Amino acid sequence: MSKRLGVLVVVLALVSSAAGSASKADEKPSELWLATASSLGQRALSDPAAFDFVRSLTTEIGQRLAGTAAHKRAVAWAEARLKAAGFENVHSEPFTFPAWIRGEEKAEIVAPIPQHLAITALGGSIATDANGIEAEIALFRTYDDLLAAAPGSLAGKIAIVTQRMVRAQDGSGYGAANPIRRSGPSEAAKRGAVAYLLRSLGTDSHRLPHTGALTYKDDAPRIPAASLAVPDAEQLERLAALGPVRIRLVLRPTVEENASSWNVVGELKGNERPDEIVLIGGHLDSWDLGTGATDDGAGTAIAFGAARLIGSLPQRPSRTIRVVLFGAEEMDFSGAAYAQAHQGEIGNIVVAAEADFGAGNVYSVQLPPGAAGSDFGRLLQRVIAPLGANVDSRPALFGGEDIRDLHRAGVPTSSLRQDGLDYFDTHHTADDTLDKIDPKRLEQAVAVWTAFTYLSATSGVDFRSLASTAK
Amino acid sequence: MSKRLGVLVVVLALVSSAAGSASKADEKPSELWLATASSLGQRALSDPAAFDFVRSLTTEIGQRLAGTAAHKRAVAWAEARLKAAGFENVHSEPFTFPAWIRGEEKAEIVAPIPQHLAITALGGSIATDANGIEAEIALFRTYDDLLAAAPGSLAGKIAIVTQRMVRAQDGSGYGAANPIRRSGPSEAAKRGAVAYLLRSLGTDSHRLPHTGALTYKDDAPRIPAASLAVPDAEQLERLAALGPVRIRLVLRPTVEENASSWNVVGELKGNERPDEIVLIGGHLDSWDLGTGATDDGAGTAIAFGAARLIGSLPQRPSRTIRVVLFGAEEMDFSGAAYAQAHQGEIGNIVVAAEADFGAGNVYSVQLPPGAAGSDFGRLLQRVIAPLGANVDSRPALFGGEDIRDLHRAGVPTSSLRQDGLDYFDTHHTADDTLDKIDPKRLEQAVAVWTAFTYLSATSGVDFRSLASTAK
Repeated sequence: MSKRLGVLVVVLALVSSAAGSASKADEKPSELWLATASSLGQRALSDPAAFDFVRSLTTEIGQRLAGTAAHKRAVAWAEARLKAAGFENVHSEPFTFPAWIRGEEKAEIVAPIPQHLAITALGGSIATDANGIEAEIALFRTYDDLLAAAPGSLAGKIAIVTQRMVRAQDGSGYGAANPIRRSGPSEAAKRGAVAYLLRSLGTDSHRLPHTGALTYKDDAPRIPAASLAVPDAEQLERLAALGPVRIRLVLRPTVEENASSWNVVGELKGNERPDEIVLIGGHLDSWDLGTGATDDGAGTAIAFGAARLIGSLPQRPSRTIRVVLFGAEEMDFSGAAYAQAHQGEIGNIVVAAEADFGAGNVYSVQLPPGAAGSDFGRLLQRVIAPLGANVDSRPALFGGEDIRDLHRAGVPTSSLRQDGLDYFDTHHTADDTLDKIDPKRLEQAVAVWTAFTYLSATSGVDFRSLASTAK
Repeated sequence: MSKRLGVLVVVLALVSSAAGSASKADEKPSELWLATASSLGQRALSDPAAFDFVRSLTTEIGQRLAGTAAHKRAVAWAEARLKAAGFENVHSEPFTFPAWIRGEEKAEIVAPIPQHLAITALGGSIATDANGIEAEIALFRTYDDLLAAAPGSLAGKIAIVTQRMVRAQDGSGYGAANPIRRSGPSEAAKRGAVAYLLRSLGTDSHRLPHTGALTYKDDAPRIPAASLAVPDAEQLERLAALGPVRIRLVLRPTVEENASSWNVVGELKGNERPDEIVLIGGHLDSWDLGTGATDDGAGTAIAFGAARLIGSLPQRPSRTIRVVLFGAEEMDFSGAAYAQAHQGEIGNIVVAAEADFGAGNVYSVQLPPGAAGSDFGRLLQRVIAPLGANVDSRPALFGGEDIRDLHRAGVPTSSLRQDGLDYFDTHHTADDTLDKIDPKRLEQAVAVWTAFTYLSATSGVDFRSLASTAK
């Protein structure tokens, strides 16, 4: 502890000296920014604030599904935390949405012999009746096999897709498999299925199924849908190879049509261009099975930790840094609510970025188009290379679910890519708990976020102009 | 497949040639045994029979808690398997015991804020009433801290011990922690506690609690007891550090006093000394949460696979090899039932060994006292060294729960020690499923078991005499 404090004192001294040297006429501003951003990055590597944030959130609040009393507690907790850390303009912006609340859920093999199955309902699934649905299964090893099934061919069946999700550092395995969960229920229903199960979109092999939202299509009946734990999906593959299998499925979720949620906001006001906004955030809501440590306690902690460090500088950056803790990401509502509420401000948002990919280290930063090779990109590269991260030559295409609508409205976005090799081991499961976070990797992520955020708010970079030049 | 068959043909030829050379007067018997045991061991390394056995058992039967219909199905399944594989004298030996059957089980933090807890009842725990027990917790970081608590000091409290279990290849971490589960409930009750929870005896960090049997003491009130998943135990440690915590616990198990179980037996009759018995086995019953793949489907598969390979030789070994698949190990009933039923046969059992430590490779074989340095020990070492295993210079102290009573009655026992570094990640949890078995490691274990069993049944070794010489 004393060692850590010692490091902090030295680093603070460096930061002060770097800031102090701003008055020297023989030094370029970019050299000052470089020194300050580098010092902040080093400081982040031993700053416990982000881990403390997610530890407190997951311990004192726990799960916080949007629409539940727990999420409301989380909102009050977050406001108090932001105020205590010195943020300005701390407030919560309300919106309403249809909240989906998990109920009883169970499944069992009825024939050839009784066996319990570990399942969990997909977010948005309709309920079965209290007795559930019992039917024979039709099992497909790939999603394309299901799509190739003829209309009506699944009449009266429970359709099951057991396609494996690929482990990939950049999350591309999840992206590729996502339609199996999102669209599978409606595709199965179009072919006559009465319910739908999929092998969890996860890279683990535990009896802990992965939840996640589905999207019913308008041209298909709505059928109940759930995920199987990976070992259970494999068990069904083996049993289905031996003969007919019957399953009973009970799902009893409910929906509250006009539930309340809030996007929680805190700011560091810019000292020269306060109307120009660098927006960073994560989402405060979580799924209900675990305590939302990596999804997305870690992301909120990263945004909080990065902004807090910048706020501790002797002098504020030129632009305003706005931290937004979104309030209903998992069911895709908070980003739209935020974009709608801030329509008039779109032009003022210099850049937006959301941390929503776990607690791993950042290995690559994707900037808006045209920025990677710019002075800004090179400056950022000099700061983050010693932290173990690169500026990616490819531009950011997706900054996060909650800033998708801002991006569509014209806001430049960045993507700070975290190592996700193990992220989908616990993503959306009961296993998403604090022990899955490595504090040192989290601190590295905060360091890169701090550098990116500080430079975006200080350097005067105009991402829109870089993008138009790049075209 | 054709490659595998090719290997089999070559190995069979070697085995036949080794057996054929028995008639050559210039060859010592031990050299023949060495050649045959080595060939059998090599053959085991590509023999799918053991994995097929455990795959079928866990897929077509699944969980098989003693006293349930599923276990009865497993007994019929096992008899049919043994007969189909050519075993003789296949039968099941019945016994009665008090069967403990899991019921509803749930726990939640009530205060400071509601949170779900992942728990599972300990085997043998009494039930709470339907509404459960709600009380403040008294949390101890080590078991000794609990033992140091004064009588009456836990009055009205739910006692919780969160001591960590150590990961160790030889299972010593489990041995050291075992009293926390076995004796903790009564020790807590003596001090006034109304219920007992422990951090799971496991080396994982998943939301899958580890069950296992408790042993109530006669001089303490019986209180309900359950295991917490590791992340939940850690959550309670963090919350307890912040202030009082209240929990509600509901456990609804039942007991069937005169339930039936069976020890399933199959033999390869010895061709010279059929009354002398080499007894190997595993236990067919499992806990109810997973499918009992590593505990102890793997053990039954190892014993089956080893004996089956020996049975495929052109000529039977001198002594009888008896495979016993015990029927109520998890609650400690089948070993006593077996020893009692076979009292008159104790002197005929040359050696007994049980495979009940997962599906890992065997790295060390502990023989009865005096045998490690004997001709038998050296012969075995020559066969298993190429397989990656050693004869341990230390004698076997514990051969397995089901042969403990045989050992007490004078039967020499051996312990074929499997690598258990990862065994307690899934032991006694819902995660004990087929995917946790690495077929190649299982095959290596079968190879060492085959060598040990063959040499014990062929060489005429007298372990009792070696033990008395060693004294």
